[in-house]
Amino acid sequence: MKKILGTSLLLFGMAAFGQTKEDSVQFSKISLEVLNNGKGYNDLRELTKNIGHRLSGSEAYEKSVKWAEQKLRDAGADKVWLQEVMIPVWVRGKESLHIKTSNGGWKSLKMLSLGNSEGTGGKDVSGEIIMVKSMEEYEKLSPEQVKDKILFFNYAFKQSFIETFKGYSDAAKYRTTAASLTAKKGGKFAIIRSLSSAFDDVPHTGAMRYEDNVVKVPAVAIGSSTADELEVLLKNQKITAKLNSNCGMKGEKLSHSVIGEITGKKDQSVIVVGGHLDSWDVGEGAHDDGAGIVQSIEVLRTFKKLGLQNNHTIRVVCFANEENGVKGGVQYGKTVKEKNEKHLFAIESDAGGFAPRGIALDMDDTKRKQIQGWSKLFLPYGVYNFEEKFSGTDLYPLHDMGIPAAELMPDSQRYFDIHHTEEDTFEKVNRRELLLGAVAMTQMIYMIDKNW
Amino acid sequence: MKKILGTSLLLFGMAAFGQTKEDSVQFSKISLEVLNNGKGYNDLRELTKNIGHRLSGSEAYEKSVKWAEQKLRDAGADKVWLQEVMIPVWVRGKESLHIKTSNGGWKSLKMLSLGNSEGTGGKDVSGEIIMVKSMEEYEKLSPEQVKDKILFFNYAFKQSFIETFKGYSDAAKYRTTAASLTAKKGGKFAIIRSLSSAFDDVPHTGAMRYEDNVVKVPAVAIGSSTADELEVLLKNQKITAKLNSNCGMKGEKLSHSVIGEITGKKDQSVIVVGGHLDSWDVGEGAHDDGAGIVQSIEVLRTFKKLGLQNNHTIRVVCFANEENGVKGGVQYGKTVKEKNEKHLFAIESDAGGFAPRGIALDMDDTKRKQIQGWSKLFLPYGVYNFEEKFSGTDLYPLHDMGIPAAELMPDSQRYFDIHHTEEDTFEKVNRRELLLGAVAMTQMIYMIDKNW
Repeated sequence: MKKILGTSLLLFGMAAFGQTKEDSVQFSKISLEVLNNGKGYNDLRELTKNIGHRLSGSEAYEKSVKWAEQKLRDAGADKVWLQEVMIPVWVRGKESLHIKTSNGGWKSLKMLSLGNSEGTGGKDVSGEIIMVKSMEEYEKLSPEQVKDKILFFNYAFKQSFIETFKGYSDAAKYRTTAASLTAKKGGKFAIIRSLSSAFDDVPHTGAMRYEDNVVKVPAVAIGSSTADELEVLLKNQKITAKLNSNCGMKGEKLSHSVIGEITGKKDQSVIVVGGHLDSWDVGEGAHDDGAGIVQSIEVLRTFKKLGLQNNHTIRVVCFANEENGVKGGVQYGKTVKEKNEKHLFAIESDAGGFAPRGIALDMDDTKRKQIQGWSKLFLPYGVYNFEEKFSGTDLYPLHDMGIPAAELMPDSQRYFDIHHTEEDTFEKVNRRELLLGAVAMTQMIYMIDKNW
Repeated sequence: MKKILGTSLLLFGMAAFGQTKEDSVQFSKISLEVLNNGKGYNDLRELTKNIGHRLSGSEAYEKSVKWAEQKLRDAGADKVWLQEVMIPVWVRGKESLHIKTSNGGWKSLKMLSLGNSEGTGGKDVSGEIIMVKSMEEYEKLSPEQVKDKILFFNYAFKQSFIETFKGYSDAAKYRTTAASLTAKKGGKFAIIRSLSSAFDDVPHTGAMRYEDNVVKVPAVAIGSSTADELEVLLKNQKITAKLNSNCGMKGEKLSHSVIGEITGKKDQSVIVVGGHLDSWDVGEGAHDDGAGIVQSIEVLRTFKKLGLQNNHTIRVVCFANEENGVKGGVQYGKTVKEKNEKHLFAIESDAGGFAPRGIALDMDDTKRKQIQGWSKLFLPYGVYNFEEKFSGTDLYPLHDMGIPAAELMPDSQRYFDIHHTEEDTFEKVNRRELLLGAVAMTQMIYMIDKNW
């Protein structure tokens, strides 16, 4: 008995070792292929330089749909199609913000209207600025104090979090709610300090939301240093602000998410890898989320190029309209439900094309622990963090259907310097960092495909 | 007995927990102080923008000595002094490289002479280019084939390593040996493809060495894309290269490393944290190694600011002449030996101001394992890698004396895009990444100071 047990353990041990070794060899092949022959960086150059930013509803977005369709075919997808999505159309138009100090003329400030905000209809709207630095300070203001004023929410992005996404979440309520908070106390429009980890003059746009049954007043963002200067000015004097903007919602439009897949050799259950194809209407949407798009295409290309025999269908989804509606993600989830398509796993890359540090896991304990058991395989690639955490926005409908969801976790230090700004350009993306993200996602999908 | 044992274990457990908790609270205080109030980023702006690059022997280097002295005083050092170091003086001067194709005129190539290389004495030196892509190809060339020719070492930086330092080490021999290899077979000068992870036209300088008793011919570097173009041209035709350069060694000079310390409260044994103050004579020496200098000063500042009661002396060393001689490091080691100063630990930051991922440990097993036992404390700061590995160049003399040495390991993906080039500027450094490196070093020194 002892001997038999010994032999069994030995065999078991060998099998386990064999599997790990085989996986580690496969991990290495994936890495070599992507780092040496990866197309993701050049794809990103095309997307950002030939098309540029691509807000939902824009002509550029429609161009990017055609581009992604072609790229998926070039990467070797067995099947490529467009998924119809009704998307909201928001247009910025001309905009300007000026301030007047008690003893001077008008001075122009760098600004961006927040996404989904209404404008002033091309008319000047002006009033005295009142500053609050927190929600608590806002709560203390009476409607009399705010009436006909401009509310300036000067809440600084907290530098103290190690992961900048925590700083972003912490400050995000100011962006989403400033307009309605202003309107509820009778203010004319809201100015917010940008959700930015940088100390510069770059305004960051991003989605805001109007509360139901509250007047829709405009909301705009200014850069950190402009906010600091304004705060100093407000210490000694009354400041008038004047906004003129043409932005606003222009109804809805039929558009598309782009989907490509390689068919499963064993069954048709689906593993999703994706990013969002749309971006804000400034900069080039390079990190947000051109990176996620080209990485996802790279995953498919690498499976085909290496001839990996995928058991299940590997599907790339380039989601429409993540930035100001998440209509692509919602539509994808709805379609999965309608067609009753079995999904094994879904991963999104939507946190920038920086060097990967981990993969956030949003699924039940058993599955999460199984994946965490593979972590040693990822360590040589600098990927060590497999925390339970929020998965990508576009995947939430899938997550809510009980499908295990995940998100690539790149280093977060630089993201909120350039997020939703003119600075989110191709030049800010490093080739190796971008490709290593694709390596980690390909490796993870290889493991899921093999073991689930 | 059982009960007593139980109690002991409980007390031991509580003490251990208490210590960890206390440490984790202290780690958090350090991080908050540096991320919220850190001066390192502004210090780096001063060093790079007011002084700029600062090669050993230059006036700028002497300015940086004065600057570092003042910064250490401002940071609260109890004692600041200059350590005399005799340094080699290498000067670049004017330089140009042209090529002539069989049917065209002369075309100028972007180039940099390698550091420590001799020039052409301001005269044109020309000859036909022969390309080799590896040492093996070089070995196969006969002296007859090389005589009076220009040897072009076109060895490409390997993209396949995950840590780019491995790619750098792999390619480094071409930079250090190309000139003597060329001379030994009768060639006139050497051109190397830059040790670069980027696919651009930026030449990278860096130290080369002449073998004893071999003619000192010049060696220059060209950027990756220029090297690729030259390779294509050489397929169809003979190409002549013409070099004109004035670089060369100009003897030695007395200069200084800069040292500042806070005195140990318990004893005078020393913990060193440092970087090198010199840089190459192009760009601004921001990542290499302005980052290491300002991070080291930040460590001292943070100890003082938080009132941490350091048991041992914490000493910042800004080493002279790392880039082309390591005379500062050697002199420091020599002085430690002469004065018989007890050193507990030394850590250098000289791998760029990128987000930290680990601390390389170069010491005996017992000490290394003790440090590795602290790794959970570092994990929330993104610092997870405590491998046995080479410590900083300047610390080698200390390491050889048996002193435990370490080096900060930042993310390496972007470093060799800009290393030793015009592109190594302040703009390439991210404030948070830089400061997180200082956080990790301060935390490590806090642990060493407390436990050793």
